[in-house]
Amino acid sequence: MLSKSFNFYSSSITKQLIRLPFKKLTTVNRSTIFLSLKQCRYISHEVPKDKLIVFDTTLRDGEQSPGVTLKTEEKLEIARQLSSLGVDVIEAGFPIASQGDFEAVARIAKEVGPLMTGREKIGKPVIIAGLSRAAEKDIKRCFEAVSHAPLHRIHTFLATSDIHLKYKLKFDREECRRRAAAAVAYARTLCDDVEFSSEDSGRSDMDFLCRVLEDVIEAGATTLNIPDTVGYNNPEEYGRLIKYLIKNTRGSDKVIWSTHCHDDLGLATANTLSGILNGARQIEVSINGIGERAGNTPFEEVVMNIHTHPDYYPVYHTINTQQIYRTSHIVSSLSGMIIQPNKAIVGANAFLHESGIHQDGVLKNKLTYEIIRPEDVGVFNVNLVLGKLSGRNAFRARLEELGYSNMSEDDVNTAFESFKALADTKKRITDHDILALLSDQVSSSKSQRFELQSIQVVSGTHDMSTATVKLKDNSHNKELIDAAIGPSGPIMAVFGAIQRLVQRKIRLLNYEVRAVSEGMDALGKVSLRITEDIDDSENGEVKDSKKPSNAVYLGNGTDLDVVTASAKAYVNAINRMFEEEINAQTGRGRVLSFNRRIVDI
Amino acid sequence: MLSKSFNFYSSSITKQLIRLPFKKLTTVNRSTIFLSLKQCRYISHEVPKDKLIVFDTTLRDGEQSPGVTLKTEEKLEIARQLSSLGVDVIEAGFPIASQGDFEAVARIAKEVGPLMTGREKIGKPVIIAGLSRAAEKDIKRCFEAVSHAPLHRIHTFLATSDIHLKYKLKFDREECRRRAAAAVAYARTLCDDVEFSSEDSGRSDMDFLCRVLEDVIEAGATTLNIPDTVGYNNPEEYGRLIKYLIKNTRGSDKVIWSTHCHDDLGLATANTLSGILNGARQIEVSINGIGERAGNTPFEEVVMNIHTHPDYYPVYHTINTQQIYRTSHIVSSLSGMIIQPNKAIVGANAFLHESGIHQDGVLKNKLTYEIIRPEDVGVFNVNLVLGKLSGRNAFRARLEELGYSNMSEDDVNTAFESFKALADTKKRITDHDILALLSDQVSSSKSQRFELQSIQVVSGTHDMSTATVKLKDNSHNKELIDAAIGPSGPIMAVFGAIQRLVQRKIRLLNYEVRAVSEGMDALGKVSLRITEDIDDSENGEVKDSKKPSNAVYLGNGTDLDVVTASAKAYVNAINRMFEEEINAQTGRGRVLSFNRRIVDI
Repeated sequence: MLSKSFNFYSSSITKQLIRLPFKKLTTVNRSTIFLSLKQCRYISHEVPKDKLIVFDTTLRDGEQSPGVTLKTEEKLEIARQLSSLGVDVIEAGFPIASQGDFEAVARIAKEVGPLMTGREKIGKPVIIAGLSRAAEKDIKRCFEAVSHAPLHRIHTFLATSDIHLKYKLKFDREECRRRAAAAVAYARTLCDDVEFSSEDSGRSDMDFLCRVLEDVIEAGATTLNIPDTVGYNNPEEYGRLIKYLIKNTRGSDKVIWSTHCHDDLGLATANTLSGILNGARQIEVSINGIGERAGNTPFEEVVMNIHTHPDYYPVYHTINTQQIYRTSHIVSSLSGMIIQPNKAIVGANAFLHESGIHQDGVLKNKLTYEIIRPEDVGVFNVNLVLGKLSGRNAFRARLEELGYSNMSEDDVNTAFESFKALADTKKRITDHDILALLSDQVSSSKSQRFELQSIQVVSGTHDMSTATVKLKDNSHNKELIDAAIGPSGPIMAVFGAIQRLVQRKIRLLNYEVRAVSEGMDALGKVSLRITEDIDDSENGEVKDSKKPSNAVYLGNGTDLDVVTASAKAYVNAINRMFEEEINAQTGRGRVLSFNRRIVDI
Repeated sequence: MLSKSFNFYSSSITKQLIRLPFKKLTTVNRSTIFLSLKQCRYISHEVPKDKLIVFDTTLRDGEQSPGVTLKTEEKLEIARQLSSLGVDVIEAGFPIASQGDFEAVARIAKEVGPLMTGREKIGKPVIIAGLSRAAEKDIKRCFEAVSHAPLHRIHTFLATSDIHLKYKLKFDREECRRRAAAAVAYARTLCDDVEFSSEDSGRSDMDFLCRVLEDVIEAGATTLNIPDTVGYNNPEEYGRLIKYLIKNTRGSDKVIWSTHCHDDLGLATANTLSGILNGARQIEVSINGIGERAGNTPFEEVVMNIHTHPDYYPVYHTINTQQIYRTSHIVSSLSGMIIQPNKAIVGANAFLHESGIHQDGVLKNKLTYEIIRPEDVGVFNVNLVLGKLSGRNAFRARLEELGYSNMSEDDVNTAFESFKALADTKKRITDHDILALLSDQVSSSKSQRFELQSIQVVSGTHDMSTATVKLKDNSHNKELIDAAIGPSGPIMAVFGAIQRLVQRKIRLLNYEVRAVSEGMDALGKVSLRITEDIDDSENGEVKDSKKPSNAVYLGNGTDLDVVTASAKAYVNAINRMFEEEINAQTGRGRVLSFNRRIVDI
């Protein structure tokens, strides 16, 4: 069509990088991958390509999204899924931030670190990384958490821009170089796999940045990550930055260069791809692009760009793309971060067949479009899968097909009970229903303080609504019952009654309901966020200086009845609030003076 | 930082285009804009720049999104807002598709075409465009609709790829050239402003495409639009395509070149920007990026890229960026296409101050980030604005501040009544509340068949829910009342009772609720989609061959009580269904044999 020789990305860099030796981090046997992983299309390219290292930061940068707070069980669920998706590195958290964060990273390292499910062809488990500032205490703590994993990484960072040095860090360039090198050197005494990020790279003096990067390479860093912290680069600028650093940093061929882009201007995917074209061999991404502000680079978009343009990018990946849709669904469900219908790759409208509108569909698919096939990213089967008469074996088989092959017997039993209860009312149970039930199960803590027993509601357009709610308080092993009226309908009356029962003033920050599938008998999934209403409190018990102020708790609840689903979600959020209070009292809560949200990468 | 001379986008094309004479379509006095429009940052560039023509296709391509069906009143509301936002061209629809589409385009041309509100500095009203196939009948119909506007455009298209010619159009290349030129020549006999789009450009033979484009330039086309129909180009490929066509098409300097990108791989914004860097001077975009599949190029992202990089792009725009957030909100609300929180520019998390998490905010804003200021895109004031004691004048003043300065006395009265009713229950009424009430008002047809009178509900966790609903049937001027039970909660019981009252079997396709603001007294906004359940019908009346099969109707409803809001939304959708049936019977409905969704640009 157009001359193949026309290429505005410098091919010299590409060629240079193709010659790079394989790094310690990618010791997997290349020829094996080359021949066996049929899903990865890199085979069509004759030139040997570099492996692209996919570093997923859903659990670190993604969890910094406003209003997202994942419980350890939920983080584990996501980490397990990331492992079977085939990501190369999971950034599991920021261990120094709190005892809770530390324990979550440690459990992921222990429980997900060794898993080989779905990674048989990759031949090694996922690397578990933790973030740490450039200070010994942080790095040590990080190592203690990640070292439970067979493969682990310490990721440390320091700002390199003058503005940061002067106003935030309050030391000079020399001290910056010294601290960066010292941090990496110390990390290397603990671990062979050390990543360094230069915070605020984009506003750093380029020559100074090269000197810092030379120092950390010399100190033993194995990966250098260049965040577009500001999120304002365009593809040309970001690609140029990566290219410049690779060219002007002594020892640059000894390390893997990594991208980390933000989507403030809608260019994160394009910037990341430009980074790859200019020499980066690791990408930091998050599922559905969740992260602070407009978020991080969406995993699914970068991977599918490479997947659909196998001859264009000088890299291959070992992602099992058929797990993309499922992973996206789990992350959205547990984080409460919804996906808009017109989101690339994972939005509900991204594939025509999901839209319910099939006119000219065949024509369009075969003749006029070359869209990604739904099966390439594992879009669920929305047809009838199970019904009232389906037995435990059929249910278990379906769970396995959906990727839940590691569930404990207890968990399968609980899920089967929910399934049977649902099947009593709903004729056709789809994959969406099953996944909604499972995510509800993950979100409900095993040792939850309050359990919803029953609700009774009377309401109408012109009258006050009245709700009666019965809760079980597990920590005092007693049943609580009370009623409340709500001027704004039965759901708010239910929330009012629950507030009375738990004796707290609670502020509802947001509230969303979505039907999981079509039909009048669809499951309703409620997602809401609460915070304690400290200012308006009339209750003496509320004042607790150890409790994080402004703490936001997410609650999820699923039920055929939206009122019941709302009550479940509300109780779920309240249970988290009480759990966090206990954590704070026992020193496991987040240390407030060191909020994770100060991390600018 | 880095050498300014490094630029991988060929600057020769850019320079060449800077010399292009101003086209008929941009006759606005440049020096006036140059000096007066302070919001547009192009002033900082010394070289005179080209005006970027912003062509908004929210009402055509955006309305093709699965499940989106806008009523004429809603289209007018969006068009009015696009006009005061400062877009240069509004593609108002596809007039030949149906009598309803024709009338909507004609009303937009008549009522929005002459508006100058918010465009004082631009100095001319918006151009109203309509789409048409390359056939006389289509073009004539299109002209009849758009010609009511002082400035109007005919946009015609024809596929140029061999695969389309062979399998879909069934004629040869010669005939393609002849038809394209004939269509444009005919359009020019009606109108001076004619745009031609080459459908499936990406898979067309490049030399043949140049010949077609030469023919249409000779026939009088003033704008040539190059759709990335497949949505699979990357920025380099798309920029290269634009550059190649401009270079190799005789007469290319006589026309404006236009981009039209899809977001299937998350690159629509980057591709559009690459088009601009390679010579395009019109961009086809939609608000929030709505459109088929993963959607179109998001208006707000492209505009804010240019806005924040005034020295980088060789163009200036005359968009009032302070209307962006409001426009985004209106389109999302009326189309039912939600915006994810991590959406660039318009997502709820895009600006830190919206997140409720302010730690280190000042530091971040001033020192480490240069994010777009919320006021740049007109993010609403979420503080207390009005309360129970606010009078009509205060309310009207607030409406005007929100951009509703053209409302009729009747509409203000209706809105004020809803406001007072809300203020009886809700202490603090925010801009979000007011906008939710207004969008509800726009969505409710003035001549709606059914009106919700009252609801009574009894329900509980372990029992069947019972709902009693009273509707007024305006076409028979009588009250209808019935009850129904629902095994899945009070909302479904209400829907069941309404189905009985309207005597139809209705299938619920999706259902969503969102709280408009914080707090227990927040308004709940319900958005749902229904379709008639023809297969399962037990009711003889349902069979109506004139009724569009698979037609999907959107319903919106807002109320403090989620149950009531759901009932309102359900009745709203049912009213649309009945309206569309009457349209079909009177010949105003969409012609089924010619569905808008066959348009592949």
